[in-house]
Amino acid sequence: MAYELHYWPSIPGRGEFVRLALEYAGVPYVDVVREDAGDGLGMPAMLHLLEDKSVRRPPFACPVLVDGKLVIGQTAAILLHLGPKLGLVGRSEADRLWTHQVQLTIADMVVEAHDTHHPIGSGLYYEDQEAEAKRRAEDFRKNRLTKFMAWFEAILERNPRNAEAAVPRLVGGSVSYADLSLFQLVDGLLYAFPKATKRVLKKAPKVAALHAGIARHRKLRDYFASERRLAFNQEGIFRRYPELDG
Amino acid sequence: MAYELHYWPSIPGRGEFVRLALEYAGVPYVDVVREDAGDGLGMPAMLHLLEDKSVRRPPFACPVLVDGKLVIGQTAAILLHLGPKLGLVGRSEADRLWTHQVQLTIADMVVEAHDTHHPIGSGLYYEDQEAEAKRRAEDFRKNRLTKFMAWFEAILERNPRNAEAAVPRLVGGSVSYADLSLFQLVDGLLYAFPKATKRVLKKAPKVAALHAGIARHRKLRDYFASERRLAFNQEGIFRRYPELDG
Repeated sequence: MAYELHYWPSIPGRGEFVRLALEYAGVPYVDVVREDAGDGLGMPAMLHLLEDKSVRRPPFACPVLVDGKLVIGQTAAILLHLGPKLGLVGRSEADRLWTHQVQLTIADMVVEAHDTHHPIGSGLYYEDQEAEAKRRAEDFRKNRLTKFMAWFEAILERNPRNAEAAVPRLVGGSVSYADLSLFQLVDGLLYAFPKATKRVLKKAPKVAALHAGIARHRKLRDYFASERRLAFNQEGIFRRYPELDG
Repeated sequence: MAYELHYWPSIPGRGEFVRLALEYAGVPYVDVVREDAGDGLGMPAMLHLLEDKSVRRPPFACPVLVDGKLVIGQTAAILLHLGPKLGLVGRSEADRLWTHQVQLTIADMVVEAHDTHHPIGSGLYYEDQEAEAKRRAEDFRKNRLTKFMAWFEAILERNPRNAEAAVPRLVGGSVSYADLSLFQLVDGLLYAFPKATKRVLKKAPKVAALHAGIARHRKLRDYFASERRLAFNQEGIFRRYPELDG
Protein backbone atom coordinates (compact mmCIF):
# COMPACT_ATOMS: atom_id res chain seq x y z
CA MET A 1 0.00 0.00 0.00
CA ALA A 2 1.32 3.44 -0.93
CA TYR A 3 2.16 5.89 1.80
CA GLU A 4 -0.32 8.71 2.31
CA LEU A 5 0.96 12.21 3.07
CA HIS A 6 -1.61 14.66 4.44
CA TYR A 7 -0.62 18.34 4.39
CA TRP A 8 -1.84 21.78 3.33
CA PRO A 9 -1.90 21.76 -0.47
CA SER A 10 -0.57 25.23 -1.24
CA ILE A 11 2.63 25.60 0.80
CA PRO A 12 5.79 23.50 1.13
CA GLY A 13 5.76 24.04 4.92
CA ARG A 14 6.56 21.10 7.16
CA GLY A 15 5.07 18.66 4.66
CA GLU A 16 8.05 19.23 2.39
CA PHE A 17 10.47 17.61 4.84
CA VAL A 18 8.46 14.40 4.49
CA ARG A 19 7.88 14.79 0.76
CA LEU A 20 11.61 15.14 0.09
CA ALA A 21 12.31 11.85 1.86
CA LEU A 22 9.60 10.04 -0.11
CA GLU A 23 10.72 11.58 -3.41
CA TYR A 24 14.41 10.88 -2.81
CA ALA A 25 13.63 7.25 -2.02
CA GLY A 26 11.44 7.01 -5.11
CA VAL A 27 8.62 5.21 -3.33
CA PRO A 28 4.97 5.55 -4.34
CA TYR A 29 2.93 7.91 -2.20
CA VAL A 30 -0.31 9.81 -2.40
CA ASP A 31 -0.22 13.54 -1.65
CA VAL A 32 -3.75 13.23 -0.34
CA VAL A 33 -4.94 16.81 0.05
CA ARG A 34 -3.69 17.78 -3.41
CA GLU A 35 -5.92 15.14 -4.98
CA ASP A 36 -9.53 15.89 -5.85
CA ALA A 37 -11.90 15.33 -2.95
CA GLY A 38 -13.83 12.11 -3.12
CA ASP A 39 -12.65 8.54 -2.90
CA GLY A 40 -11.32 9.36 0.55
CA LEU A 41 -8.92 12.00 -0.79
CA GLY A 42 -8.66 15.79 -0.74
CA MET A 43 -9.01 18.10 2.22
CA PRO A 44 -11.85 16.10 3.84
CA ALA A 45 -9.48 13.16 4.27
CA MET A 46 -7.00 15.25 6.25
CA LEU A 47 -9.68 16.97 8.29
CA HIS A 48 -11.09 13.56 9.18
CA LEU A 49 -7.74 12.54 10.69
CA LEU A 50 -7.37 15.79 12.62
CA GLU A 51 -10.93 16.43 13.72
CA ASP A 52 -13.15 13.34 13.62
CA LYS A 53 -13.92 11.97 17.05
CA SER A 54 -13.78 8.42 15.73
CA VAL A 55 -9.99 8.73 15.26
CA ARG A 56 -8.50 7.14 18.35
CA ARG A 57 -5.06 8.74 18.13
CA PRO A 58 -5.56 12.05 16.29
CA PRO A 59 -2.43 14.07 15.46
CA PHE A 60 -2.35 17.60 16.87
CA ALA A 61 -1.52 19.05 13.45
CA CYS A 62 -0.35 18.13 9.99
CA PRO A 63 1.78 16.81 8.33
CA VAL A 64 0.38 13.36 8.93
CA LEU A 65 1.73 10.17 7.37
CA VAL A 66 -0.53 7.16 7.01
CA ASP A 67 1.38 3.90 6.63
CA GLY A 68 -1.13 1.08 6.68
CA LYS A 69 -2.70 1.16 10.13
CA LEU A 70 -0.18 3.67 11.48
CA VAL A 71 -1.26 7.32 11.56
CA ILE A 72 1.74 9.46 12.48
CA GLY A 73 1.89 13.17 13.20
CA GLN A 74 4.90 15.37 14.00
CA THR A 75 7.42 15.76 11.17
CA ALA A 76 10.35 14.38 13.16
CA ALA A 77 8.35 11.32 14.27
CA ILE A 78 7.32 10.65 10.67
CA LEU A 79 10.96 10.76 9.55
CA LEU A 80 12.01 8.61 12.51
CA HIS A 81 9.57 6.01 11.21
CA LEU A 82 10.41 6.40 7.52
CA GLY A 83 14.18 6.60 7.89
CA PRO A 84 14.94 2.87 8.20
CA LYS A 85 12.22 1.90 5.72
CA LEU A 86 13.53 4.25 3.03
CA GLY A 87 17.24 3.65 3.68
CA LEU A 88 17.61 7.25 4.82
CA VAL A 89 19.33 6.61 8.15
CA GLY A 90 22.26 4.51 9.34
CA ARG A 91 21.76 1.06 10.84
CA SER A 92 23.31 1.60 14.27
CA GLU A 93 21.31 2.87 17.23
CA ALA A 94 23.89 5.62 17.68
CA ASP A 95 23.46 6.85 14.09
CA ARG A 96 19.68 6.72 14.36
CA LEU A 97 19.59 8.72 17.57
CA TRP A 98 22.08 11.27 16.25
CA THR A 99 20.16 11.71 13.00
CA HIS A 100 16.95 12.22 15.00
CA GLN A 101 18.71 14.68 17.30
CA VAL A 102 19.85 16.71 14.29
CA GLN A 103 16.32 16.58 12.86
CA LEU A 104 14.84 17.89 16.11
CA THR A 105 17.32 20.77 16.07
CA ILE A 106 16.30 21.56 12.49
CA ALA A 107 12.68 21.53 13.71
CA ASP A 108 13.56 23.99 16.46
CA MET A 109 15.08 26.36 13.94
CA VAL A 110 12.01 26.04 11.70
CA VAL A 111 9.83 27.29 14.56
CA GLU A 112 12.14 30.24 15.14
CA ALA A 113 12.19 31.11 11.43
CA HIS A 114 8.38 31.05 11.39
CA ASP A 115 8.11 33.17 14.48
CA THR A 116 10.12 35.99 12.88
CA HIS A 117 6.98 36.96 10.97
CA HIS A 118 4.50 35.79 13.63
CA PRO A 119 6.10 36.62 16.99
CA ILE A 120 2.81 37.43 18.74
CA GLY A 121 0.31 34.90 17.42
CA SER A 122 0.04 32.51 14.50
CA GLY A 123 -3.63 33.37 14.14
CA LEU A 124 -3.01 37.11 13.71
CA TYR A 125 -2.15 38.87 10.45
CA TYR A 126 1.45 39.87 9.80
CA GLU A 127 0.35 43.47 9.54
CA ASP A 128 -0.91 43.32 13.11
CA GLN A 129 2.51 42.29 14.44
CA GLU A 130 4.89 43.90 11.97
CA ALA A 131 6.69 46.06 14.54
CA GLU A 132 7.29 43.05 16.77
CA ALA A 133 8.32 41.00 13.74
CA LYS A 134 11.04 43.50 12.90
CA ARG A 135 12.50 43.23 16.39
CA ARG A 136 12.31 39.44 16.46
CA ALA A 137 13.75 39.09 12.95
CA GLU A 138 16.71 41.28 13.90
CA ASP A 139 17.42 39.07 16.89
CA PHE A 140 17.00 35.97 14.72
CA ARG A 141 19.42 37.22 12.06
CA LYS A 142 22.06 38.45 14.50
CA ASN A 143 21.96 35.67 17.07
CA ARG A 144 19.96 32.59 16.19
CA LEU A 145 20.71 32.22 12.48
CA THR A 146 24.41 32.55 13.23
CA LYS A 147 24.32 30.10 16.14
CA PHE A 148 22.35 27.38 14.36
CA MET A 149 24.43 27.61 11.19
CA ALA A 150 27.67 27.48 13.16
CA TRP A 151 26.41 24.27 14.79
CA PHE A 152 25.46 22.65 11.48
CA GLU A 153 28.87 23.64 10.10
CA ALA A 154 30.62 22.21 13.16
CA ILE A 155 28.89 18.83 12.98
CA LEU A 156 29.65 18.62 9.24
CA GLU A 157 33.31 19.43 9.97
CA ARG A 158 33.47 16.77 12.67
CA ASN A 159 31.95 13.99 10.58
CA PRO A 160 35.11 12.09 9.60
CA ARG A 161 33.47 10.82 6.42
CA ASN A 162 33.40 14.38 5.08
CA ALA A 163 37.19 14.79 5.13
CA GLU A 164 37.58 13.92 1.47
CA ALA A 165 33.98 14.01 0.29
CA ALA A 166 32.98 16.38 -2.53
CA VAL A 167 29.58 16.89 -0.90
CA PRO A 168 29.38 16.68 2.90
CA ARG A 169 26.73 14.62 4.74
CA LEU A 170 25.46 15.10 8.29
CA VAL A 171 25.75 11.47 9.42
CA GLY A 172 28.22 8.99 7.94
CA GLY A 173 28.82 8.97 4.21
CA SER A 174 25.27 8.53 2.85
CA VAL A 175 22.32 10.85 2.45
CA SER A 176 20.03 10.77 5.50
CA TYR A 177 16.64 12.34 5.97
CA ALA A 178 18.41 15.02 8.04
CA ASP A 179 20.48 16.04 4.98
CA LEU A 180 17.29 16.48 2.98
CA SER A 181 15.75 18.51 5.80
CA LEU A 182 18.81 20.72 6.21
CA PHE A 183 18.70 21.38 2.47
CA GLN A 184 15.06 22.45 2.79
CA LEU A 185 15.76 24.62 5.83
CA VAL A 186 18.60 26.44 4.04
CA ASP A 187 16.46 26.76 0.92
CA GLY A 188 13.71 28.36 2.99
CA LEU A 189 16.12 30.71 4.74
CA LEU A 190 17.54 31.79 1.36
CA TYR A 191 13.99 32.61 0.28
CA ALA A 192 13.03 34.46 3.44
CA PHE A 193 16.30 36.16 4.35
CA PRO A 194 18.43 36.18 1.18
CA LYS A 195 20.87 38.82 2.41
CA ALA A 196 21.43 37.48 5.89
CA THR A 197 21.54 33.83 4.79
CA LYS A 198 24.05 34.40 1.99
CA ARG A 199 26.24 36.26 4.46
CA VAL A 200 26.10 33.50 7.07
CA LEU A 201 26.67 30.74 4.49
CA LYS A 202 30.02 32.32 3.60
CA LYS A 203 31.12 31.28 7.07
CA ALA A 204 29.46 27.87 6.73
CA PRO A 205 30.90 26.48 3.48
CA LYS A 206 30.03 22.87 4.26
CA VAL A 207 26.39 23.77 4.89
CA ALA A 208 26.40 25.63 1.57
CA ALA A 209 27.97 22.63 -0.18
CA LEU A 210 25.41 20.26 1.33
CA HIS A 211 22.58 22.52 0.14
CA ALA A 212 24.04 22.78 -3.38
CA GLY A 213 24.65 19.02 -3.52
CA ILE A 214 21.06 18.11 -2.69
CA ALA A 215 19.74 20.82 -5.05
CA ARG A 216 21.43 19.09 -8.00
CA HIS A 217 21.13 15.48 -6.80
CA ARG A 218 20.20 13.14 -9.62
CA LYS A 219 17.61 11.39 -7.44
CA LEU A 220 15.69 14.63 -7.02
CA ARG A 221 16.15 16.18 -10.46
CA ASP A 222 12.80 15.04 -11.85
CA TYR A 223 11.02 16.01 -8.66
CA PHE A 224 12.44 19.54 -8.56
CA ALA A 225 11.40 20.03 -12.20
CA SER A 226 7.88 18.75 -11.54
CA GLU A 227 4.73 20.41 -10.29
CA ARG A 228 4.91 18.22 -7.22
CA ARG A 229 7.58 20.56 -5.83
CA LEU A 230 5.79 23.56 -4.32
CA ALA A 231 7.42 27.00 -4.40
CA PHE A 232 7.88 29.05 -1.25
CA ASN A 233 5.24 31.74 -0.90
CA GLN A 234 3.80 34.27 1.52
CA GLU A 235 1.50 31.78 3.23
CA GLY A 236 4.14 29.38 4.48
CA ILE A 237 6.73 29.05 7.21
CA PHE A 238 9.36 30.91 5.19
CA ARG A 239 8.08 34.25 3.90
CA ARG A 240 9.93 37.05 2.17
CA TYR A 241 9.33 40.37 3.86
CA PRO A 242 12.26 42.57 2.79
CA GLU A 243 11.91 44.62 5.97
CA LEU A 244 12.77 41.51 8.01
CA ASP A 245 16.00 40.83 6.13
CA GLY A 246 19.20 42.85 6.26
CA MET B 1 27.39 2.57 34.66
CA ALA B 2 24.97 5.18 35.97
CA TYR B 3 23.25 7.52 33.55
CA GLU B 4 24.60 11.07 33.47
CA LEU B 5 22.19 13.99 33.14
CA HIS B 6 23.73 17.32 32.17
CA TYR B 7 21.54 20.39 32.65
CA TRP B 8 21.53 23.88 34.17
CA PRO B 9 21.67 23.39 37.94
CA SER B 10 19.24 26.06 39.13
CA ILE B 11 16.08 25.56 37.08
CA PRO B 12 13.82 22.57 36.39
CA GLY B 13 13.60 23.57 32.72
CA ARG B 14 13.79 20.84 30.11
CA GLY B 15 16.08 18.77 32.32
CA GLU B 16 13.14 17.98 34.56
CA PHE B 17 11.36 15.96 31.86
CA VAL B 18 14.36 13.62 31.85
CA ARG B 19 14.86 13.71 35.61
CA LEU B 20 11.24 12.66 36.23
CA ALA B 21 11.69 9.58 34.02
CA LEU B 22 14.88 8.57 35.81
CA GLU B 23 13.38 9.20 39.25
CA TYR B 24 10.14 7.36 38.49
CA ALA B 25 12.11 4.34 37.26
CA GLY B 26 14.32 4.48 40.34
CA VAL B 27 17.54 3.99 38.41
CA PRO B 28 20.87 5.44 39.54
CA TYR B 29 21.93 8.62 37.76
CA VAL B 30 24.34 11.48 38.29
CA ASP B 31 22.94 15.01 38.02
CA VAL B 32 26.33 16.10 36.76
CA VAL B 33 26.22 19.90 36.87
CA ARG B 34 24.79 19.92 40.40
CA GLU B 35 27.82 18.02 41.67
CA ASP B 36 31.00 19.84 42.72
CA ALA B 37 33.33 20.52 39.83
CA GLY B 38 36.27 18.15 39.63
CA ASP B 39 36.35 14.44 38.94
CA GLY B 40 34.77 15.20 35.59
CA LEU B 41 31.63 16.68 37.19
CA GLY B 42 30.10 20.12 37.63
CA MET B 43 29.55 22.77 34.98
CA PRO B 44 32.88 22.09 33.20
CA ALA B 45 31.65 18.59 32.33
CA MET B 46 28.55 19.95 30.58
CA LEU B 47 30.44 22.74 28.85
CA HIS B 48 32.90 20.17 27.55
CA LEU B 49 30.08 18.25 25.83
CA LEU B 50 28.57 21.40 24.33
CA GLU B 51 31.68 23.36 23.40
CA ASP B 52 34.82 21.24 23.16
CA LYS B 53 35.93 20.67 19.59
CA SER B 54 37.03 17.15 20.44
CA VAL B 55 33.39 16.08 20.86
CA ARG B 56 32.46 14.50 17.55
CA ARG B 57 28.69 14.77 17.91
CA PRO B 58 28.06 17.78 20.16
CA PRO B 59 24.45 18.47 21.17
CA PHE B 60 23.13 21.91 20.23
CA ALA B 61 21.94 22.54 23.79
CA CYS B 62 21.23 20.83 27.09
CA PRO B 63 19.73 18.66 28.50
CA VAL B 64 22.21 15.99 27.50
CA LEU B 65 22.08 12.37 28.60
CA VAL B 66 25.23 10.30 28.63
CA ASP B 67 24.56 6.56 28.54
CA GLY B 68 27.89 4.81 28.18
CA LYS B 69 29.26 5.86 24.82
CA LEU B 70 26.01 7.51 23.73
CA VAL B 71 25.76 11.29 24.15
CA ILE B 72 22.18 12.36 23.44
CA GLY B 73 20.75 15.86 23.21
CA GLN B 74 17.14 16.98 22.62
CA THR B 75 14.71 16.11 25.41
CA ALA B 76 12.39 14.06 23.20
CA ALA B 77 15.30 12.06 21.75
CA ILE B 78 16.57 11.33 25.26
CA LEU B 79 13.14 10.04 26.30
CA LEU B 80 12.82 8.05 23.06
CA HIS B 81 16.05 6.30 24.08
CA LEU B 82 15.21 5.90 27.76
CA GLY B 83 11.58 4.83 27.33
CA PRO B 84 12.15 1.15 26.53
CA LYS B 85 15.09 0.85 28.93
CA LEU B 86 13.11 2.25 31.87
CA GLY B 87 9.83 0.51 31.06
CA LEU B 88 8.20 3.87 30.38
CA VAL B 89 6.73 3.12 26.96
CA GLY B 90 4.69 0.30 25.43
CA ARG B 91 6.31 -2.54 23.51
CA SER B 92 4.58 -2.13 20.15
CA GLU B 93 5.96 0.11 17.43
CA ALA B 94 2.57 1.85 17.28
CA ASP B 95 2.64 2.68 20.99
CA ARG B 96 6.23 3.89 20.81
CA LEU B 97 5.55 6.20 17.89
CA TRP B 98 2.38 7.54 19.46
CA THR B 99 4.10 8.20 22.79
CA HIS B 100 6.87 10.03 20.95
CA GLN B 101 4.35 12.02 18.94
CA VAL B 102 2.64 13.12 22.16
CA GLN B 103 6.03 14.03 23.64
CA LEU B 104 6.90 16.18 20.62
CA THR B 105 3.59 17.99 20.97
CA ILE B 106 4.36 18.62 24.65
CA ALA B 107 7.74 19.99 23.53
CA ASP B 108 6.01 22.34 21.09
CA MET B 109 3.83 23.71 23.87
CA VAL B 110 6.87 24.16 26.12
CA VAL B 111 8.43 26.44 23.48
CA GLU B 112 5.24 28.46 23.24
CA ALA B 113 4.97 28.77 27.03
CA HIS B 114 8.57 30.02 27.15
CA ASP B 115 8.03 32.50 24.36
CA THR B 116 5.21 34.22 26.26
CA HIS B 117 7.87 35.95 28.37
CA HIS B 118 10.53 36.06 25.63
CA PRO B 119 8.65 36.71 22.35
CA ILE B 120 11.44 38.82 20.82
CA GLY B 121 14.68 37.18 21.85
CA SER B 122 15.83 34.63 24.45
CA GLY B 123 19.00 36.68 24.99
CA LEU B 124 17.13 39.87 25.90
CA TYR B 125 15.80 40.79 29.33
CA TYR B 126 12.09 40.40 30.02
CA GLU B 127 11.90 44.11 30.77
CA ASP B 128 13.05 44.84 27.24
CA GLN B 129 10.16 42.89 25.71
CA GLU B 130 7.42 43.26 28.31
CA ALA B 131 4.94 44.99 26.00
CA GLU B 132 5.34 42.26 23.37
CA ALA B 133 5.16 39.60 26.10
CA LYS B 134 1.76 40.90 27.20
CA ARG B 135 0.40 40.59 23.67
CA ARG B 136 1.88 37.13 23.11
CA ALA B 137 0.73 35.87 26.51
CA GLU B 138 -2.81 37.02 25.79
CA ASP B 139 -2.80 35.09 22.51
CA PHE B 140 -1.30 32.09 24.28
CA ARG B 141 -3.93 32.06 27.02
CA LYS B 142 -6.88 32.63 24.69
CA ASN B 143 -5.91 30.40 21.80
CA ARG B 144 -2.95 28.10 22.31
CA LEU B 145 -3.44 27.01 25.94
CA THR B 146 -7.04 26.15 25.14
CA LYS B 147 -6.19 24.29 21.95
CA PHE B 148 -3.36 22.21 23.41
CA MET B 149 -5.33 21.30 26.54
CA ALA B 150 -8.37 20.31 24.48
CA TRP B 151 -6.12 17.96 22.49
CA PHE B 152 -4.60 16.36 25.59
CA GLU B 153 -8.11 15.92 27.01
CA ALA B 154 -9.33 14.39 23.74
CA ILE B 155 -6.56 11.82 23.54
CA LEU B 156 -7.10 10.88 27.19
CA GLU B 157 -10.82 10.47 26.48
CA ARG B 158 -10.14 8.30 23.46
CA ASN B 159 -7.71 5.96 25.22
CA PRO B 160 -10.00 2.98 25.86
CA ARG B 161 -7.95 1.97 28.89
CA ASN B 162 -9.07 5.12 30.68
CA ALA B 163 -12.77 4.22 30.60
CA GLU B 164 -12.76 2.80 34.10
CA ALA B 165 -9.37 3.96 35.38
CA ALA B 166 -9.20 6.13 38.50
CA VAL B 167 -6.22 7.98 37.02
CA PRO B 168 -6.03 8.35 33.24
CA ARG B 169 -2.89 7.59 31.19
CA LEU B 170 -1.95 8.92 27.77
CA VAL B 171 -1.00 5.59 26.19
CA GLY B 172 -2.42 2.25 27.28
CA GLY B 173 -2.88 1.54 30.95
CA SER B 174 0.61 2.17 32.33
CA VAL B 175 2.60 5.30 33.08
CA SER B 176 4.72 6.39 30.10
CA TYR B 177 7.35 9.10 29.91
CA ALA B 178 4.72 11.24 28.17
CA ASP B 179 2.50 11.08 31.28
CA LEU B 180 5.38 12.33 33.40
CA SER B 181 6.07 15.11 30.91
CA LEU B 182 2.43 16.17 30.71
CA PHE B 183 2.39 16.33 34.51
CA GLN B 184 5.43 18.62 34.41
CA LEU B 185 3.98 20.78 31.66
CA VAL B 186 0.72 21.27 33.60
CA ASP B 187 2.69 21.91 36.79
CA GLY B 188 4.68 24.62 35.01
CA LEU B 189 1.56 26.18 33.52
CA LEU B 190 -0.07 26.26 36.96
CA TYR B 191 3.01 28.10 38.23
CA ALA B 192 3.22 30.57 35.36
CA PHE B 193 -0.46 31.15 34.59
CA PRO B 194 -2.39 30.04 37.69
CA LYS B 195 -5.63 31.81 36.77
CA ALA B 196 -5.76 30.81 33.11
CA THR B 197 -4.60 27.26 33.75
CA LYS B 198 -7.07 26.54 36.54
CA ARG B 199 -9.82 27.85 34.28
CA VAL B 200 -8.82 25.65 31.34
CA LEU B 201 -8.35 22.58 33.54
CA LYS B 202 -12.02 22.77 34.54
CA LYS B 203 -12.77 21.86 30.94
CA ALA B 204 -10.04 19.22 30.89
CA PRO B 205 -10.84 17.02 33.89
CA LYS B 206 -8.80 14.07 32.66
CA VAL B 207 -5.70 16.22 32.24
CA ALA B 208 -6.27 17.53 35.77
CA ALA B 209 -6.68 13.97 37.08
CA LEU B 210 -3.50 12.83 35.34
CA HIS B 211 -1.60 15.76 36.88
CA ALA B 212 -2.97 15.04 40.35
CA GLY B 213 -2.25 11.33 40.00
CA ILE B 214 1.42 11.82 39.14
CA ALA B 215 1.78 14.48 41.86
CA ARG B 216 0.86 11.92 44.51
CA HIS B 217 2.34 8.82 42.87
CA ARG B 218 4.10 6.59 45.39
CA LYS B 219 7.07 6.14 43.06
CA LEU B 220 7.75 9.87 43.11
CA ARG B 221 6.86 10.72 46.72
CA ASP B 222 10.43 10.62 48.01
CA TYR B 223 11.69 12.54 45.02
CA PHE B 224 9.15 15.34 45.34
CA ALA B 225 10.04 15.70 49.05
CA SER B 226 13.77 15.80 48.31
CA GLU B 227 16.14 18.60 47.35
CA ARG B 228 16.64 16.91 44.03
CA ARG B 229 13.29 18.35 42.88
CA LEU B 230 13.92 21.94 41.83
CA ALA B 231 11.21 24.55 42.30
CA PHE B 232 10.00 26.70 39.43
CA ASN B 233 11.55 30.16 39.50
CA GLN B 234 11.99 33.33 37.46
CA GLU B 235 14.97 32.02 35.49
CA GLY B 236 13.27 29.04 33.89
CA ILE B 237 10.90 28.19 31.08
CA PHE B 238 7.83 28.74 33.26
CA ARG B 239 7.92 32.14 35.00
CA ARG B 240 5.25 33.87 37.03
CA TYR B 241 4.66 37.39 35.81
CA PRO B 242 1.17 38.30 37.07
CA GLU B 243 0.73 40.74 34.19
CA LEU B 244 0.94 37.81 31.74
CA ASP B 245 -1.84 35.83 33.45
CA GLY B 246 -5.52 36.63 33.51
